[in-house]
Amino acid sequence: MRPPTIDAALRACTRAYRSPVCRNAVQRSQFPAKVQRRWISDGSRPPIPPGVPGPSKVVAPKTRLAVGVVFIGALIYSMATGDKPPASQTPASGGVQLEGPTIAERDNLSKRESGVTPSSPMRLRMEAFIKENQQEIVRTLEAIDGKRFQQDKWDRPNGGGGITCVLQDGNVFEKAGVNISVVYGSLPRAAISQMRANHKALDPDVESLEFFAAGLSLVLHPINPMAPTVHLNYRYFETANTDGSTNAWWFGGGTDLTPSYLFDEDVIHFHRTVKEACDAHDKDYYSRFKKWCDDYFSVKHRGESRGVGGIFFDDLDESEKDQESLFAFVQSALGAFLPSYLPIIQKRKDMPYTDREKQWQQLRRGRYVEFNLVHDRGTAFGLNTPGARIESILMSLPLTARWQYQHEPEKGSREERLLNVLKKPVDWV
Amino acid sequence: MRPPTIDAALRACTRAYRSPVCRNAVQRSQFPAKVQRRWISDGSRPPIPPGVPGPSKVVAPKTRLAVGVVFIGALIYSMATGDKPPASQTPASGGVQLEGPTIAERDNLSKRESGVTPSSPMRLRMEAFIKENQQEIVRTLEAIDGKRFQQDKWDRPNGGGGITCVLQDGNVFEKAGVNISVVYGSLPRAAISQMRANHKALDPDVESLEFFAAGLSLVLHPINPMAPTVHLNYRYFETANTDGSTNAWWFGGGTDLTPSYLFDEDVIHFHRTVKEACDAHDKDYYSRFKKWCDDYFSVKHRGESRGVGGIFFDDLDESEKDQESLFAFVQSALGAFLPSYLPIIQKRKDMPYTDREKQWQQLRRGRYVEFNLVHDRGTAFGLNTPGARIESILMSLPLTARWQYQHEPEKGSREERLLNVLKKPVDWV
Repeated sequence: MRPPTIDAALRACTRAYRSPVCRNAVQRSQFPAKVQRRWISDGSRPPIPPGVPGPSKVVAPKTRLAVGVVFIGALIYSMATGDKPPASQTPASGGVQLEGPTIAERDNLSKRESGVTPSSPMRLRMEAFIKENQQEIVRTLEAIDGKRFQQDKWDRPNGGGGITCVLQDGNVFEKAGVNISVVYGSLPRAAISQMRANHKALDPDVESLEFFAAGLSLVLHPINPMAPTVHLNYRYFETANTDGSTNAWWFGGGTDLTPSYLFDEDVIHFHRTVKEACDAHDKDYYSRFKKWCDDYFSVKHRGESRGVGGIFFDDLDESEKDQESLFAFVQSALGAFLPSYLPIIQKRKDMPYTDREKQWQQLRRGRYVEFNLVHDRGTAFGLNTPGARIESILMSLPLTARWQYQHEPEKGSREERLLNVLKKPVDWV
Repeated sequence: MRPPTIDAALRACTRAYRSPVCRNAVQRSQFPAKVQRRWISDGSRPPIPPGVPGPSKVVAPKTRLAVGVVFIGALIYSMATGDKPPASQTPASGGVQLEGPTIAERDNLSKRESGVTPSSPMRLRMEAFIKENQQEIVRTLEAIDGKRFQQDKWDRPNGGGGITCVLQDGNVFEKAGVNISVVYGSLPRAAISQMRANHKALDPDVESLEFFAAGLSLVLHPINPMAPTVHLNYRYFETANTDGSTNAWWFGGGTDLTPSYLFDEDVIHFHRTVKEACDAHDKDYYSRFKKWCDDYFSVKHRGESRGVGGIFFDDLDESEKDQESLFAFVQSALGAFLPSYLPIIQKRKDMPYTDREKQWQQLRRGRYVEFNLVHDRGTAFGLNTPGARIESILMSLPLTARWQYQHEPEKGSREERLLNVLKKPVDWV
């Protein structure tokens, strides 16, 4: 089905992920590292893009309506799932009257006038970064699968939008989703108070704050039970002062692997690749974020982890490192995705398997569903937000799953070994 | 596979559910109706069973420990799913020192000395009633399926216990669970306050109250997509005064049908049978409890009902009717189960179907999973209660389920018609 040239290219890429085919992913993580050093050296914020009105033109948004605490749900969900919050909860359709140009308007103007450069606001750079990565990941996965993604693009009336890419019933992937979303909105007072726990820069005395959120999220469920499911999400969040300057900002995200059958070499490769991306920025990141991942992706009612982990972090702001350093780290982390997963899917996608092994995978998929529907905060918030785009939230669910009463793997079997590992997270590197 | 005599008996039963084969179900609903009239006429409570110590021997339970608000979760879950709460949350293992005989001890003594008669406490009569019904339902379903249920019996150290019956990968049923549970425990102050909203008889000034809960719950997921899933749960709850007499009590429960393909005659038969059981006790019950069912079994994030409804009610206590009348009603309602479902499963279990129809059933099963894991209060409480018996809680999940991105049924198809009905509950009778 697939031209031999693609196969050859993929083989080259997956054997040595610093080869030319995967060059972009690696180079992206080097370029911002330079930018980072520049910003560290002079300690300043990026200059205000030309064409953006100065502080004096923006009136304090006393008349902006708070859109209800529920919005924070949609917001967190947006960041967790890469989908837009429901239109009914957004300022544009919620009757909010803005008194000056929004950051969405400023950003649009800035993009039209000067494009996105290393001196653009982080919002625009993050948006450009996740867009570029989504397309690269989608192209690469299409080459592996031989089937095209369905791409749904949507725009938001008040700025922002997203692209949902889903491949279903493919040759390699049972279901694969790669989404990006960019959201501009207004954060009500209640949400601000709640967020202040982690972000002291947030002013508790304003009625509302403009915010921006952008993220990429993906979940891949392969057909072959020997090939693991993988999940990834990286996101950037920012609130704006009334003069349009940045108020608070933070990065979050992570990636984790969920095998049905354990191949230690795969898990070690995955963790090692992620660790290398972390180590290039901070020697403590990997161990901190690995633990955070083990803690978060826990199917608590089963007393087991969802998978063999990876990294997870949230609320990384100036109390952690400067913005450029953290952006550089997120770029490296997302850039490490294809190198971390491609060699694994290539090795496992055509392995022989039995019906019994497929059934075990289906039971594990059931556990994935349990985590996502019962414990995942983003999913819960999204599902409880009236008007949310459910299909995008639940894109993360597998195509098929199974629940068997009191299924117990055989003593000494590979299935039992996986369960033992899931009960007590392992240090893989 | 199945002896022709069973087939004949089943046919007789399902064609006319007042035939001798189903006699028990109907008679059970008539017997208590007489008892009810007797209690209404003299207005008294059932006499204290012989052998039960009088009030003077029971000391106010000042030293009984409250076991934490979480227990109410396990409790409600117990009632909703027919499973026991986690041992770590129960008084017996929680270090509670009782100062007099518990109601569990009184009930045990009473059972040993006089068995269960119409003058026994409601606790014992409800327990006997659900036990008897569980066995009858299990025997009938085994006759239909040709495969035996796996029966797991468990006892609780401080009284009570349960029987979990599961049939999996059968000839007719993909998965079928019929559970009963009987729980004796101690209700902490916080839980009492919460429950007072619905039960004013509860004394808010005590540190704890002994309680009793007993229920039967079942979920049947047939293999054939033309045959609907059915769910049923009936439960009785009671708290005791310090002298062992009844403090507050109430009944709850219901039954509802979840088809993948709509056969109006099936839904009408189901609702009509349930309505007849209701009408025999109160002409308003069916319409009230039908609406309650539509409201509760709503997959809110999808804007659709889980199925085509049935009845649901909770907190039915003396403010509704006297205890005997309500018990008689619950007996009729549970007694109507086999008559309501058997004719349907008999008609549909061997119908031809296509792969496409099986796949649609699997998508609908996905929705069932969504309701149970996201919205069902009993399941949520249970899963969040440390130490709960997860396999019994999640017995309600189907063996297999499917999630397809943006699946849309064809215009004018049977699948579309089902969705339209689920979006706007129908009055079937």
